[in-house]
Amino acid sequence: MIGNGFMGAAHSQGWRTAPRFFDLPVDPQMTVMVGRDPDKNAALAQKWGWAEASQDFDAVLARDDIDIVDIVTPGHLHCDMAIAALEAGKHVICEKPLANTVDEARRMADAAASAADRGVLAMVGFTYRRVPAASFARDLVARGAVGQVRQVRAQYLQDWLSDPEAPLTWRMDKSKAGSGALGDIGAHAVDLAQFITGLSLTEVSGVMETFVKERPVLAQGQGLSGSAGTERGPVTVDDYAAFSGRFDSGAMGSFEATRFATGRKNALRVEVAGDKGAVLFDLEDMNAVQYYDATAPGTEQGFTRIYVTEADHPYMEAWWPPGHMLGYEHGFSHQVKDFVEALASGSQPTPSFADGYQVQRVLGAVERSANDGSAWTATE
Amino acid sequence: MIGNGFMGAAHSQGWRTAPRFFDLPVDPQMTVMVGRDPDKNAALAQKWGWAEASQDFDAVLARDDIDIVDIVTPGHLHCDMAIAALEAGKHVICEKPLANTVDEARRMADAAASAADRGVLAMVGFTYRRVPAASFARDLVARGAVGQVRQVRAQYLQDWLSDPEAPLTWRMDKSKAGSGALGDIGAHAVDLAQFITGLSLTEVSGVMETFVKERPVLAQGQGLSGSAGTERGPVTVDDYAAFSGRFDSGAMGSFEATRFATGRKNALRVEVAGDKGAVLFDLEDMNAVQYYDATAPGTEQGFTRIYVTEADHPYMEAWWPPGHMLGYEHGFSHQVKDFVEALASGSQPTPSFADGYQVQRVLGAVERSANDGSAWTATE
Amino acid sequence: MIGNGFMGAAHSQGWRTAPRFFDLPVDPQMTVMVGRDPDKNAALAQKWGWAEASQDFDAVLARDDIDIVDIVTPGHLHCDMAIAALEAGKHVICEKPLANTVDEARRMADAAASAADRGVLAMVGFTYRRVPAASFARDLVARGAVGQVRQVRAQYLQDWLSDPEAPLTWRMDKSKAGSGALGDIGAHAVDLAQFITGLSLTEVSGVMETFVKERPVLAQGQGLSGSAGTERGPVTVDDYAAFSGRFDSGAMGSFEATRFATGRKNALRVEVAGDKGAVLFDLEDMNAVQYYDATAPGTEQGFTRIYVTEADHPYMEAWWPPGHMLGYEHGFSHQVKDFVEALASGSQPTPSFADGYQVQRVLGAVERSANDGSAWTATE
Amino acid sequence: MIGNGFMGAAHSQGWRTAPRFFDLPVDPQMTVMVGRDPDKNAALAQKWGWAEASQDFDAVLARDDIDIVDIVTPGHLHCDMAIAALEAGKHVICEKPLANTVDEARRMADAAASAADRGVLAMVGFTYRRVPAASFARDLVARGAVGQVRQVRAQYLQDWLSDPEAPLTWRMDKSKAGSGALGDIGAHAVDLAQFITGLSLTEVSGVMETFVKERPVLAQGQGLSGSAGTERGPVTVDDYAAFSGRFDSGAMGSFEATRFATGRKNALRVEVAGDKGAVLFDLEDMNAVQYYDATAPGTEQGFTRIYVTEADHPYMEAWWPPGHMLGYEHGFSHQVKDFVEALASGSQPTPSFADGYQVQRVLGAVERSANDGSAWTATE
Repeated sequence: MIGNGFMGAAHSQGWRTAPRFFDLPVDPQMTVMVGRDPDKNAALAQKWGWAEASQDFDAVLARDDIDIVDIVTPGHLHCDMAIAALEAGKHVICEKPLANTVDEARRMADAAASAADRGVLAMVGFTYRRVPAASFARDLVARGAVGQVRQVRAQYLQDWLSDPEAPLTWRMDKSKAGSGALGDIGAHAVDLAQFITGLSLTEVSGVMETFVKERPVLAQGQGLSGSAGTERGPVTVDDYAAFSGRFDSGAMGSFEATRFATGRKNALRVEVAGDKGAVLFDLEDMNAVQYYDATAPGTEQGFTRIYVTEADHPYMEAWWPPGHMLGYEHGFSHQVKDFVEALASGSQPTPSFADGYQVQRVLGAVERSANDGSAWTATE
Repeated sequence: MIGNGFMGAAHSQGWRTAPRFFDLPVDPQMTVMVGRDPDKNAALAQKWGWAEASQDFDAVLARDDIDIVDIVTPGHLHCDMAIAALEAGKHVICEKPLANTVDEARRMADAAASAADRGVLAMVGFTYRRVPAASFARDLVARGAVGQVRQVRAQYLQDWLSDPEAPLTWRMDKSKAGSGALGDIGAHAVDLAQFITGLSLTEVSGVMETFVKERPVLAQGQGLSGSAGTERGPVTVDDYAAFSGRFDSGAMGSFEATRFATGRKNALRVEVAGDKGAVLFDLEDMNAVQYYDATAPGTEQGFTRIYVTEADHPYMEAWWPPGHMLGYEHGFSHQVKDFVEALASGSQPTPSFADGYQVQRVLGAVERSANDGSAWTATE
Repeated sequence: MIGNGFMGAAHSQGWRTAPRFFDLPVDPQMTVMVGRDPDKNAALAQKWGWAEASQDFDAVLARDDIDIVDIVTPGHLHCDMAIAALEAGKHVICEKPLANTVDEARRMADAAASAADRGVLAMVGFTYRRVPAASFARDLVARGAVGQVRQVRAQYLQDWLSDPEAPLTWRMDKSKAGSGALGDIGAHAVDLAQFITGLSLTEVSGVMETFVKERPVLAQGQGLSGSAGTERGPVTVDDYAAFSGRFDSGAMGSFEATRFATGRKNALRVEVAGDKGAVLFDLEDMNAVQYYDATAPGTEQGFTRIYVTEADHPYMEAWWPPGHMLGYEHGFSHQVKDFVEALASGSQPTPSFADGYQVQRVLGAVERSANDGSAWTATE
Repeated sequence: MIGNGFMGAAHSQGWRTAPRFFDLPVDPQMTVMVGRDPDKNAALAQKWGWAEASQDFDAVLARDDIDIVDIVTPGHLHCDMAIAALEAGKHVICEKPLANTVDEARRMADAAASAADRGVLAMVGFTYRRVPAASFARDLVARGAVGQVRQVRAQYLQDWLSDPEAPLTWRMDKSKAGSGALGDIGAHAVDLAQFITGLSLTEVSGVMETFVKERPVLAQGQGLSGSAGTERGPVTVDDYAAFSGRFDSGAMGSFEATRFATGRKNALRVEVAGDKGAVLFDLEDMNAVQYYDATAPGTEQGFTRIYVTEADHPYMEAWWPPGHMLGYEHGFSHQVKDFVEALASGSQPTPSFADGYQVQRVLGAVERSANDGSAWTATE
C-alpha cells in the first residue's frame, strides 16, 4: 500500500478484515506500506498491521512477492504511480478520483487497458458503491423497480469548510487536489448516480464558486487543530459546485457538491425517480434504502425504509443478524473481497480505470462549463 | 353548545366548517352557546359564530329549535348535563372522558340506551379516531393487513407539567378532573388502541405516580401565564400512568400516559404488531401512517410512510390535493359529519356512550390496580 | 371572490375562519362569488358560504358594498381583472403567480403602485410564507441565527404527472398556464427562498425539460378521473425546471421544480446554510423547522427539530396548545389576517405586486436562460 | 476465547481491530480459541485469526501464556467457566447475561470480588454501553443536561420470532437460555437504562407472555434456514416481557422486551426525561443521540439530532472524520480498549460482575413479579 493518510487506515482495515468474514479465493498478505516520512510511516505500518515499511516505491515495485499495489496517495501522484505499477505487472487499486486531470485519467485508462491484455488488472476505489444499501439501490433499479428513470437528484453535502477560519490544507490547493468540492466529493455523487441508475452523463451545465477566498496558513509542523498564525493563503479550488446533467437515456440529473452545507456532515444522497417508483440512498442513513413503489395500491403508496441488513442483501450474509448496522469502513472490506475475487477469476474488477476516466471526463466537463458561463458541455 | 374553553373553539370550528366541505344531509345551525360567565360567554359566542349566548342551560334545553346539545364542559359536569339533555329529547355529543367516575359513565350509558329507544342519539367525542390516518390504520388492521394482532404499544406523551413551577389548575384537582394523565390523555390512548385494533381490554395491571406534589396557586384573576404567588397547593391527580393490558383476543398491550415526557408535545402513538405486519400512528406526524408488510419479499420489507392525503383515504376527498396536510381541528369537522349523518339516517353514531363507558371501566380498572399494588384487575 | 376552483375553497375557508380565531380590526363579509358557469358557481357559493353568486365581474366591481376583490382565477386572467379592480378602487388579493408573463406582471405592479397612491392596496398570494414554520425560519435568519447566508437549496417536488397517462389539463397548456412546473410550483420555491433569506436573486442559469410530450385529452364533460379516450394532445409546458441562482449578497442558490419526483407529494423545501447555522423548512413536515446552530458546543451540534406550535411562534397564539398541528389551509386565514390588518392601518401588505413582479422576473430569466443554453441571465 | 458462535466473530473482530486504531498499553495476542466441535472450531479459529484451536478448556486455563479468558458461550455455561478462569488467575470478559440465574450470578460476583483482591479482574460484556452515542448520552445526563431524571422509557424490540414457523432453537429453551426476550435483550435495556441515567432499579412490576407456544423442531444437522419437519416442541421462555420499575431516586421506568415487534429489527431505545431536558438513544440510529434542552429559549426548543461522530465524542478520535458512521461491531473494539486499559492500570473494568449480578437481580425480580400477578418486587 502506498500512502498513509486517513485513507490508508481505511484500506488497511479492509485488507485485514475481509478474510475474516468472507471466504476469499486467496489470502491477501499485508506485506509492505510505502510512505515518505520514515518515522511516521514505520509507526503507522506497525499500527495498521503491515509486515514492513518502506520509503522506496520503485524497490517495492521490483519485488516478486508483491502482487497488488494499493494507491492511497493524493490525486496528483496517482497517474505516475499507477502506470508504473501496472507496467511492473502489479494489479492496482487506486483511490478516487482516478487523477487530477482528464488527461492523466485517460493515460491511466489506456495503461490499464494495455495491462489487462497481459492479465494485469486495475480498479478505482469508489467504495460507496459497496455500501450494501447503495448496491441494493442499484439492484432495485436494475430489476425495473423504478421503471424508466426520469430524474436523478445527487448531492454530496459536507460542512467542514463552513468556518472561514478553518486552515488551508492541500485539499484547497489546486495544484495538489485538482479541484475542491467537485473532485473530492462531487466525484462520488457522479459515480454513485451513474452506478445506481446504470446510466451515463453525456452533457452538463455547471457552476463553481469559492466562498472563502483566503484561509489561515498552518505554520510548519502545526497539526490541523493547531492555532493558526496570522498568515493567509489563497484557496484555489471550488467550495461549491452545482450542475445539471443529461443522461444518455434522456433523463435529467441535478447535482450539488459542497463543503459549506452547514450541519450536513457526510450527506451523499442519490434519489432516482422513474415512472414506476423511486429510490433514495443517503450515506447519513447508510444502512437503509428508501423505496417508493408507484405500482402499489394508491392508498398504500409511500416511501418504504428498508434496512439493508438481511442476509439476502448484498454483502450482508458475511456479517451480523438483521438490524445490526455496518459502518463506514465496511465498504473497504467489500472492495477487497470484490477485487480479490476478480483477480482470482481473471475478470475485470469494477469500477475500472475506464470507469474512473469517464467520471473524470464528467468532472472536467463541469469545470469547462463553469468557466464558459454554464454552457452545456459534452462529457466526451 | 355548553362550555367555552379551548374545546369550545375546536367544536365551533367543526360545526362551522363541516358543511363547507362535506355534503351533509342537513345543515346544522349554530344557535346558542351556554356558559357561566355572561361577558366572556357572550364575547366568545360572537367570536366563534354562535347566534346567541345564554347562561341558562335548562332554558336552552326547553327550546324547540334546539335538536343537538354539544357538551364541552369539564368532566365532572358531563353526567348531569348529558342525562338532562337526553331526557329533554336532544341528541348529545359529549366530550371525552365521558365522565369522571365509572359510576357516572354507567349512568350515562344507561341513559343513552334508553334515549336511543326513543330515537334520541348520543356520541362521545374521541375525535382522534377521525384523524384520517387513524381511521386508515383501523382500516388496514380490519382488512387483515397486520394479520393476528399480538402486541400493542400505546402512548400519549406530553410535557407541559414537566416544569415544577407550572401552576395548579383544575386539571390537577381530582375533584374536578377525576384523574390526571390517565383520564385526560390516557383515555385517548385506550380508545385509539381499541379502535384501531378492534379489540377490547379485559384486564390491566397499572401504576400511577405524581412527580410534583405541590404547585403554585394562581391568585384570583391571574391567567395561566401570570406570575404565580408564593402559595402552593396539592396536586391530587397522577402525573404519570403506565399499565399492561390483556385484550380479549389474548394480545398484550403496553400503555403509558404522561405529562412529563420532556420534549414530547402531543405524542399519541399507537403501534400494532401482528403476525403479518404492523401499523404505527403518531399524532405528532398526523398525516401519515407507517405500515410494515411482513408478507412482502424479504429484502424489500420496511416501514412504509403512507401520506394519508389521497382522495381515497378516509374523509380526504372533501379536502385538498394529495400531500396537502390537515391539522388538529379537522377531526372536529369529521366528527360533525359523522354525527349528523348518523342522526339523519337514525343509526347509532360511534363511539357511543357505551363505548365511552367501556373506556371509563378500563381507566377505573387501572386506577384500582394501581391502588392495589398493580394487581391484575378486570375491566368489567 | 373571483374564481371557484380549489383555490376558491381555500380562500373561502380563510375568509370564514380568520375572524373566528384572530381579533381583526374589521369584520370581513363574504358578499359575492363570481364565476362563469352559473349553476356550478351558485352551488359552490352557497356551499362555501358566500351570500350571493354572480357571473358579472364588471357589475360586482361597480358595487359600493364591495371593498376587497380576491382573484383566484387561472393566471392568464389575473392581469386584466386585477387592474380593473384596482382602478375601480377595490383592494386586491391576487393568487400567485401574479401573471403568466413578465410584461403582465409589470403592468400589474405599475397599476398597484398607482393605486397605492390613492390608498388602494394590493397583495399577491404566496400563502406558504404564512405557514408559521416558514415565518419562523425567516425570523431565525433575520435575527442572525444562521449568520451570513452562503447557500440556499430550494425544491418544490411533486409527482402527479409522473404517470404518463395522466390527462392533459389547462395546467399543461402554455397559453393558459404560462409555464409548467416553473410557474406553478417553482414560483413558490423562489418566493419562499427569497422571503426566508431576505435576499434577492440577481441572475440565474436554468434548464427546463418536458418528459412526457403528449397526454390523453379528456373528452368533453369528463372529470379528471374519467377514463381518457385515445386522443392525445401536446404538453406545451415544462415538466421539470432546475436552475442555479446568484443572490444579491453573493450567496448561491440551487433550485428545482418538478411534477415528476415520484413519491414526493408536496415537498416544498428551503434549506439555508450560513456561517453560523442552517435552517430547513419542508412543507411535508409543515409544523416544524429544522435549525442547526453552528455556534453551539461542538459535541452538541445537530439539527434541532422545532415544533412551531408554541404560543410565541408566528400566528400560533390564536390556535391550539403546543403540539397541536396546523394544516394546509391555515395559511389562508393568516393571509386574511395580515391583509385586513394592513388595510385597516393603511400600510402596504406583503408580498406586494412589486414582490410578485420580481418573482415573475426571476421565472422569466430562468425561461430565457433555458432557451439560451443555460447562459447566465439577469433577473432585471 | 471460549465459544465460537456469532458473538465469537464479534469479539474476535474487537480483539483484532482495537490495537489498529487505539494506542493500547499492551498488545493483546489472539492465542487460542476453544470450542467443542473440533473441525468447526479449527476452521473458525483460522478464519477469525486465532493462532490455535483447542477443545480443552482446562488445558487452556493451565497455560502460562494466557492472561485473559473471553467467554462467549451460551449463558448456562458462564458460571462454571468464569469462576474456573478467575481461580486460575486469568482476567475474564464474560458475555451478558452474566448467568442464567440470580444464584449463579451471585456466585460469579463473589468470585470476581475475591479475584480482584488478588489483582485478577472481571468484566461483563454489555457492549452497547460502548456505542459512542450511548456513552455520550450517559455523559449528557451525568453533566446535568436533563436535570433530575423523572422518567425512563426503555425498549428492546426485535421481530425475528414473529413468524410462528420460525424453528425452535436453544434460545427458546429455558434450561439453556434461562429466559427469552427478558434475558436475551431485556438485559440490555435494563443495563443501558441504568448506565445512561446512573440510577438503579429498586423494585419492579412485570408481566411475561409466550405468544407462540410450540415451534417446529429442526431435524439433526438442519441449519436455521432448513425446512423444518412436522415435529413441534414447546417454547419454554417468554416471547414478551414488560415491566414498570422504580429507580432509587424515585424516577419511574417503563420497560419492554419483545421479539414479536413486527418490523423492529434491533430497536434498543432508551429515552430519559428530566426537568431540564431529555435524551434518546436508539440502536437503529446508533450514530446519533437526540437531545432536548428544556432550558433553551421557548421558541427554539426541540430534539436536536446530534451525530456522535466528532473527534471529541467518546471513542471517536480513533476513527474517521465527522459524519462517517460506525457499526455494530465497533463496540467490541471499544470493549477491548477499555478492558485492556483497566488491566494495565490495575483498576476495575466496568461493568463489573457485580454490575452484571445487579442486572440479573432486576431480571429475576421481573420474573418473580410476573409469576406473582405483577406484584411489586424488590430487586434485592
